[in-house]
Amino acid sequence: MLNFDFVNPTHIVFGKDRIADIAKLVPEQAKVLILVGGASAEKTGTLAEVRTALGARQHATFSGIEPNPSFETSMKAVLQVREEGFDFLLAVGGGSVIDAAKFIAAAVPFEGDTWEILLKGGRNVKSALPFGTVLTLPATGSEMNSGSVITRRDIGAKLPFGNPRLYPKFSVLDPTKTYTLPTQQIANGVVDAFVHTVEQYLTYPVNAPVQDRFAEGLLQTLVEVGPRLLAASEPNYDDRATLMWSATLALNGLIGAGVPQDWSTHMIGHELTALHNIDHARTLAIVLPAMLNERRVQKREKLLQYGERVWSIRTGTDDERITAAIEQTRAFFEAMGIPTRLSEYGLGADAVDTVVRQLEAHGMVKLSEHRDVTPEVSRRVLEAAL
Amino acid sequence: MLNFDFVNPTHIVFGKDRIADIAKLVPEQAKVLILVGGASAEKTGTLAEVRTALGARQHATFSGIEPNPSFETSMKAVLQVREEGFDFLLAVGGGSVIDAAKFIAAAVPFEGDTWEILLKGGRNVKSALPFGTVLTLPATGSEMNSGSVITRRDIGAKLPFGNPRLYPKFSVLDPTKTYTLPTQQIANGVVDAFVHTVEQYLTYPVNAPVQDRFAEGLLQTLVEVGPRLLAASEPNYDDRATLMWSATLALNGLIGAGVPQDWSTHMIGHELTALHNIDHARTLAIVLPAMLNERRVQKREKLLQYGERVWSIRTGTDDERITAAIEQTRAFFEAMGIPTRLSEYGLGADAVDTVVRQLEAHGMVKLSEHRDVTPEVSRRVLEAAL
Repeated sequence: MLNFDFVNPTHIVFGKDRIADIAKLVPEQAKVLILVGGASAEKTGTLAEVRTALGARQHATFSGIEPNPSFETSMKAVLQVREEGFDFLLAVGGGSVIDAAKFIAAAVPFEGDTWEILLKGGRNVKSALPFGTVLTLPATGSEMNSGSVITRRDIGAKLPFGNPRLYPKFSVLDPTKTYTLPTQQIANGVVDAFVHTVEQYLTYPVNAPVQDRFAEGLLQTLVEVGPRLLAASEPNYDDRATLMWSATLALNGLIGAGVPQDWSTHMIGHELTALHNIDHARTLAIVLPAMLNERRVQKREKLLQYGERVWSIRTGTDDERITAAIEQTRAFFEAMGIPTRLSEYGLGADAVDTVVRQLEAHGMVKLSEHRDVTPEVSRRVLEAAL
Repeated sequence: MLNFDFVNPTHIVFGKDRIADIAKLVPEQAKVLILVGGASAEKTGTLAEVRTALGARQHATFSGIEPNPSFETSMKAVLQVREEGFDFLLAVGGGSVIDAAKFIAAAVPFEGDTWEILLKGGRNVKSALPFGTVLTLPATGSEMNSGSVITRRDIGAKLPFGNPRLYPKFSVLDPTKTYTLPTQQIANGVVDAFVHTVEQYLTYPVNAPVQDRFAEGLLQTLVEVGPRLLAASEPNYDDRATLMWSATLALNGLIGAGVPQDWSTHMIGHELTALHNIDHARTLAIVLPAMLNERRVQKREKLLQYGERVWSIRTGTDDERITAAIEQTRAFFEAMGIPTRLSEYGLGADAVDTVVRQLEAHGMVKLSEHRDVTPEVSRRVLEAAL
């Protein structure tokens, strides 16, 4: 096991009818800016519940945070907060709204050009506004971590940042708030949580059996619950709750503590989203199977363990078992209704060049747990994913 | 899944050579009282490392905290803190020293009779001194939770209490600090972590597959690593690290979030320790197999799942599989060198009466996830454990 630090102070408030708890969670004197995406939080009544819980506290609503939240939109909120003196943010939505909240929280007190926060990966964040979240879309895990990804539209760049000051004070996770989501969003959530887990698990062994078992437990659970979520004619509370808690646990720092981490699939996926506006989870479903195949030597032992424990693959040569594990992974994504080939998104060989150039431009030239996924390796992965 | 709140702010500092980090973790102006048990922290050099890390900070050492820490000894430390004005506690040791630190932290600012803290289970704790820990004995999980158990010697009472103000600010977990432990302590740690997990897992199903998988992952890991820890002629770093992290995760609130919890085995075990000074883990090894057998109807579904997933029991009638799962549990404890019968500790039928009377005296009359383990049920369990 590797040395590690683990700390996660976010208060999770999980279950039915928990939005009312916001009344106790937000400081009484706070002046609150509610952040939302489109119109759905208003339409579903979630926003009304939130406003009721805020009671007599001063509050306003900033709407229009887009999927893959932009620097440009977030900066409008930053200016509003600075001008009107809000001192608490409340993100109501999915990972995009929460990621934007983290950027806004960091940018409001930031001195200088706020784009520098992204360029420095958040290391230059010295203080941040406090914020809470009400999660309506289980997927990214942003509700219980201190990381975020922001896209700058004018230059087509999607960059991650993080800082220990950016944990939500609290996150309300009410599974019934996912009932109105389109099926595609649920499928995206399953795949996103799955790949988050894989990025922290499918590396090389360091004798960390608990981390392995926890990661495998999440993967097994997502494999069990994913198809059931898609097939259900009516939302099932327990399955929604399981997806919600799994997605949170997949990226709250726990399963990655003390083990190597990869994240190369994510970095390549971010470029695909920035350039071609493909849903985050879908870019992961495109890149991961090709990446695992490309890295079958470096990931050999963990691929065999993954095949056995998650997919019950116990026969065949090592190579056959690895191939079967990768194909099961691809089949799982496709069964969730998510195509795994670039061509199915209308992209051809010319797209590969652009993505590789963007990876180079953003310094993503030594990816993976071994720091040996160079642009040349990324190119091979993308070509295999055509 | 049941509604739940989960929050755990303790900063875990895990790995080799991490005691030096205390220099950054304790406030610079703090006046620190170090709490230790016997002489081992001094002898092994751990205390010297801690003092070096504290640097120029004022500090003193309070030693003599016993296994199953007493109200009486803890109160001596409380008086010293009050008289000499310490404002930070640093527990160096195992669960006993850490549990005492929690009581001292709560008692120092407490107004009135501090025994009331125990009688009210900690609900009356309004503030507490901040404290950190350096763990040298993996077992109780006290290093990452807000609970504690204190024994009052004069009346033979061992009572639990807890409060959200009693999370350690940080806990340093260096697996090499366990190298000097006697084998029996390692065995106790494995069994303690195992039973902590079982108390939060072996109840009734509530459709919480992630919690189940995490609990099973801990149990599988302890079953794998336990015998290896005992058989090793030299301490193995990774196995020690695995035990240490498993014991922490077994009782930091995570696996119990959103599921029913039992704890009847613990409550009966506490009385055995208070009356007969049997190691905590050993009391659990005595009570648990008898309890599971007594509760085989109420715990039927989870016992079958436990048998299959932890012990690979897949053949036989339901009753045969449940019996096999319980017998595997008993055999595991015995393989760890821990007898599972009261008679092996020199106790006979007359001991049963006294334990049952103490349970009644302490209000432990509606135990378990169903609150139906009455003193009469506890009596049957103890008689079956003779």
